[in-house]
Amino acid sequence: MSTSTNTTRPPKASNEIFIGKKPLMTYVTATLVQLANEPTVVIKARGKSITRAVDVAQIIVKRMDTIGYKIGPIKLGSEQVTSEDGKMRNVSTIDVPISRTK
Amino acid sequence: MSTSTNTTRPPKASNEIFIGKKPLMTYVTATLVQLANEPTVVIKARGKSITRAVDVAQIIVKRMDTIGYKIGPIKLGSEQVTSEDGKMRNVSTIDVPISRTK
Repeated sequence: MSTSTNTTRPPKASNEIFIGKKPLMTYVTATLVQLANEPTVVIKARGKSITRAVDVAQIIVKRMDTIGYKIGPIKLGSEQVTSEDGKMRNVSTIDVPISRTK
Repeated sequence: MSTSTNTTRPPKASNEIFIGKKPLMTYVTATLVQLANEPTVVIKARGKSITRAVDVAQIIVKRMDTIGYKIGPIKLGSEQVTSEDGKMRNVSTIDVPISRTK
């Protein structure tokens, strides 16, 4: 059995924050808490939450910039979801990595 | 009482597509037309239109990928806007560059 570093994506890494319908500051706080332990935290969202993910990233980087955080290379994607009528739809996704600069 | 809410914005460059409330395919077509003339077109949006900007970029890159387009380094930002009640608010922005790969 190989113990070598397997870089295939784990189901949910501890350094990911998935943006949903809670108040924005919930995700800002959750991200900041994670950033105390991890050098990089990835803010993820899909569909209409994409705007909120950008807001969270901006709040962290702009308001907290004395502490020093920066936005890494952003990744866009799309996922297929089955809607209630059984049709397949594409939904856009965004991954915004936030890193400590010091 | 000032009625002018003119945030100083640079004149619109010819390779920028600003996402608003029109049907998505309007922006997809506009971007593709611009890409016939320019090597790179920047899809710009702010606030709730950010999600739509990501959708436009995904439609171009996924559905039209035989032609060969790629998403460049995405830039997030925020702008101050004066809302109707006179308060200053921050609104998030996104710039998604799309380039021809050949």
